[in-house]
Amino acid sequence: MTLVLGIDPGTATTGYGLVRDREDGSLESIDFGTIQTPPRIEAHKRLSMLFSQLNELLLLHRPDSCAVEKLFFQSNVKTAIAVGQARGVVLLAISEAGLDVSEYTPNEVKQAVTGYGSAGKKQVQEMVRVLLGLPDIPRPDDAADALAIAITHLHTRRF
Amino acid sequence: MTLVLGIDPGTATTGYGLVRDREDGSLESIDFGTIQTPPRIEAHKRLSMLFSQLNELLLLHRPDSCAVEKLFFQSNVKTAIAVGQARGVVLLAISEAGLDVSEYTPNEVKQAVTGYGSAGKKQVQEMVRVLLGLPDIPRPDDAADALAIAITHLHTRRF
Repeated sequence: MTLVLGIDPGTATTGYGLVRDREDGSLESIDFGTIQTPPRIEAHKRLSMLFSQLNELLLLHRPDSCAVEKLFFQSNVKTAIAVGQARGVVLLAISEAGLDVSEYTPNEVKQAVTGYGSAGKKQVQEMVRVLLGLPDIPRPDDAADALAIAITHLHTRRF
Repeated sequence: MTLVLGIDPGTATTGYGLVRDREDGSLESIDFGTIQTPPRIEAHKRLSMLFSQLNELLLLHRPDSCAVEKLFFQSNVKTAIAVGQARGVVLLAISEAGLDVSEYTPNEVKQAVTGYGSAGKKQVQEMVRVLLGLPDIPRPDDAADALAIAITHLHTRRF
């Protein structure tokens, strides 16, 4: 059994999702949610908050490996730098925990979760729900995205 | 007297420069150089190296405050994310050391160092040399840029 932490990094909200594969090959969601930092606080203090909450998650769940979304498409360069800063802190926390990290593009996530690289957001979320045997689509979107990344990693490892 | 750490964050090379103002208002360079990480290593491990070397610098010199270049102009979004990741780790290290950080745009740095917002790179470097009373222009460029950022912070604080 492998426990994977999927992370969808963002400046205001970072989604996370922990998924484990059972011996029969089915998947189980262990935890999911978001780390939020208050917008009125200076950037470096928000990054400290993100780092500290990521460290708590890593300590609490001790995942076997981590997966993060690979970002290419940002609306503009200013957004890209801000998301990059959060992403840098996410990668650092994982590295400092002695873990490796795999990166997947949005298309790889869609392909792995739905079998279809151009699937829509709702289709991906519905497949996440089905694959994890959840009664409802996980909320908020950032947490569902993080679960999809974790599922992608488990699928990719398996094949 | 105030000791300022200026940092010019980058993926492969992060420049740093420590500048102190003397009681007579003149400036003194305490240390400058670059933190380099090997290109063939995975991103998250490089960020750990950067974090650890920044922490060493902060512990060794115990600056009173820090200044980082504010980035807007990157050639493309992929570069912006990579630089953002390094920048996120720089801001985190400063925040974890309990220090505040000020951010200056390239134009603010040019204005503060040369009195002229459109000054060229060579003019800025020559003024850094003169202001710090150094025999030669500090090398490499990333270290000279970091010293210019530290000087900007001291000038801005003074006025």
